[in-house]
Amino acid sequence: MLTPYEIIRKKRDGGTLSREEIGLLISSYTSGDVPDYQMSSFLMAVYFSGMSDEEILNFTQSMMGTGIVIDLSAIPGCKADKHSTGGVGDKISLILAPLAAACGVKVPMVSGRGLGHTGGTIDKLESIPGFRTRLSIEEYKRTLASTGIVMSAQSDEIVPADRKLYALRDVTATVESIPLITSSIMSKKLAEGIDALVLDVKVGNGAFMKTVSEAKALAKKMVKVGKLYGKQVVAYLTDMNQPLGHEAGNWREVVESIRVLRGESDAHDVIELSKTLTAEMVSLCSGDSMKKSMERVTQALSNGAAYEKFIEMVKAQGGDSSFIENPEKYPPARFTFEVQARQSGYVHAIDSFGVGMAVVKLGGGRRKVSDVVDPVVGVTVVSKIGEKVSTGDVLALVHANDKDAAGLAVEEVAGAYKFSGAKPKAANLIKERIA
Amino acid sequence: MLTPYEIIRKKRDGGTLSREEIGLLISSYTSGDVPDYQMSSFLMAVYFSGMSDEEILNFTQSMMGTGIVIDLSAIPGCKADKHSTGGVGDKISLILAPLAAACGVKVPMVSGRGLGHTGGTIDKLESIPGFRTRLSIEEYKRTLASTGIVMSAQSDEIVPADRKLYALRDVTATVESIPLITSSIMSKKLAEGIDALVLDVKVGNGAFMKTVSEAKALAKKMVKVGKLYGKQVVAYLTDMNQPLGHEAGNWREVVESIRVLRGESDAHDVIELSKTLTAEMVSLCSGDSMKKSMERVTQALSNGAAYEKFIEMVKAQGGDSSFIENPEKYPPARFTFEVQARQSGYVHAIDSFGVGMAVVKLGGGRRKVSDVVDPVVGVTVVSKIGEKVSTGDVLALVHANDKDAAGLAVEEVAGAYKFSGAKPKAANLIKERIA
Repeated sequence: MLTPYEIIRKKRDGGTLSREEIGLLISSYTSGDVPDYQMSSFLMAVYFSGMSDEEILNFTQSMMGTGIVIDLSAIPGCKADKHSTGGVGDKISLILAPLAAACGVKVPMVSGRGLGHTGGTIDKLESIPGFRTRLSIEEYKRTLASTGIVMSAQSDEIVPADRKLYALRDVTATVESIPLITSSIMSKKLAEGIDALVLDVKVGNGAFMKTVSEAKALAKKMVKVGKLYGKQVVAYLTDMNQPLGHEAGNWREVVESIRVLRGESDAHDVIELSKTLTAEMVSLCSGDSMKKSMERVTQALSNGAAYEKFIEMVKAQGGDSSFIENPEKYPPARFTFEVQARQSGYVHAIDSFGVGMAVVKLGGGRRKVSDVVDPVVGVTVVSKIGEKVSTGDVLALVHANDKDAAGLAVEEVAGAYKFSGAKPKAANLIKERIA
Repeated sequence: MLTPYEIIRKKRDGGTLSREEIGLLISSYTSGDVPDYQMSSFLMAVYFSGMSDEEILNFTQSMMGTGIVIDLSAIPGCKADKHSTGGVGDKISLILAPLAAACGVKVPMVSGRGLGHTGGTIDKLESIPGFRTRLSIEEYKRTLASTGIVMSAQSDEIVPADRKLYALRDVTATVESIPLITSSIMSKKLAEGIDALVLDVKVGNGAFMKTVSEAKALAKKMVKVGKLYGKQVVAYLTDMNQPLGHEAGNWREVVESIRVLRGESDAHDVIELSKTLTAEMVSLCSGDSMKKSMERVTQALSNGAAYEKFIEMVKAQGGDSSFIENPEKYPPARFTFEVQARQSGYVHAIDSFGVGMAVVKLGGGRRKVSDVVDPVVGVTVVSKIGEKVSTGDVLALVHANDKDAAGLAVEEVAGAYKFSGAKPKAANLIKERIA
């Protein structure tokens, strides 16, 4: 067996590591026997030398092996989840999870918190008074069995290696590696005990992947590893060149999701994406066509079944559903400022990263893991790409609890808007399906 | 100014770092503000992305800036040193330093200890009873001024960053990087206060560089950086596909050097290489041609001036010169075993790495920095490449203080010899001069 040093050198020199070599490295790192400085040089070697599909699978499985792999086989039905690589205004999980559950899919969803410009599903759920996201594995299973849906924060018992590894990658410029991103995402998702997975790989100025080719490469690897592991996995490349819907900010996104579930929202992009990704989950689980699955999804959304499932899920996890039924009960942010157009023309582009950072500046996101988020602050994106505006028109609203932060956020959002004289060509929300 | 994280990312992405960025990284690492895990990912990024000549110069100078740069300008005359990248039986410094000094060159030589299969000049010198290699900077200057030669171990005050960095590279598979090797060697040499430097870049099975192209790339970078720093630097690529001379082992190499200095040795390779590299130092310092410089060197060797200078140097550094005058006074190793030819034919190849490792197994070298070396053990290489031997002939002698270790060493040396039916073509000892 190679030593950790020899494993680093082998990867550096473009070699293919065996399952045992990868297993040794991951387990020794998790136990502390391999120090951070050896792991970080290994990670940089992976950044340059890459990994074969087999190596990524072994890396993923070795990471899973450092913690508990949940067994949901005692719960009848097909279990499916969705994972997004992260964007701005991305509240799809809040709609998709109850919608899929309303269509009979068991949805054991494990989500993350926001970091940097991207929000996190767990922060959004935690803005609901009383809602508990830290569930034991027993509670997680029990809630899924009784309600058909559970939305949980990642447990410390699941893939502990990933938390340690991700923290190291974050400070050593080794985040942007497709094999490492793939194994990080897939290890956590496959440890949930799911049968099927839909991946939403965001592309654009508010996404981790800026280009379709990068996003496609990541999507393909994740689908490949999921299949090698024996699971059904489909990925979608979707647009993140403007925030999704109109709201960015934790509670504001919950409210927008409630409106979609109630049929009260005009956020076409949110509705289309939620329905498509949910239909894919239904299709993977039922074996039915996408067309037929989409019909079921459309019905479950329009007849209120998905909304009822959302209420049921909130109650099952300790949330006060009166805030879902009457969102106006929620204490609002102290100030609302308008972001006005400083010129006339068509909205040509919106820098989603800038909008996401405006939310962070307002206190609605995190610069570092230990930051506490303010649930009520955020940005309402009034004008989206392709809309015609005149000087002085309201482009967006900034909801703040602090005037200084609001001033910074207004500037950030104003700067995120770009205008043109001609109406820009509409981008496809859903760019590609990779199966 | 970029943060350490951004500096890593910039190098990872193939960017060229500024003098300030490199300076920040090196000083922060030396002070402990940049942790090992960030430095090791940076080093691996350098391994893959490389460095421009300007970056290597800045890296070298930043390393020098973490310690004392010796100023020898108060001592008249041209100061020159030689550095070898390390080999087996490489006792050239012991001959070259007094020989150059006998020709009027001031020789302020700072050397290292052996590690792994390669020996170190300091270990050899320390085998001389009483010889002191740990000199203060004041003693170093005083000895050079009075004797024209000083042979010292590296002071902790010189390039402390290199010790910390080298220890990290050693465990993170980032040793084999030409920019990092260049800056490590050149920072230490340029901090000595020299005017001229001759580099002996070894190539072959006992060398760090296995191929001429690798060795040439390293030699060119070192020459370039030395010139950018304003010093005269010439490099030679020399053969290390068999041990130099007949002796490997600390005191044994001192004795072989004494014999060369007294004109009693038939080790043609040692004599030729010592004379050539010394003549280069004389030529760089005097401005005279290599031919004229070689004449002076030949004379200083044959008339005993170099030998006298060696005795003077030993005395100046506290050594008991009676052991130089009568090496047979030295207590020998307890056992000597023969390594016999197990077949007949021409010696086709000798794995110098194997011979070097035999010395390590005997206790004459180090596996790790903290090991203590036994000065008297070693290997006598009786038959060299091209010699015809018959089964049972003595190929080599193993000098040991421990019978078990001797057995291992005999096997190692026996295995190092390869034979052929036809006489092999002689390799050039000196392959190329790079100026």
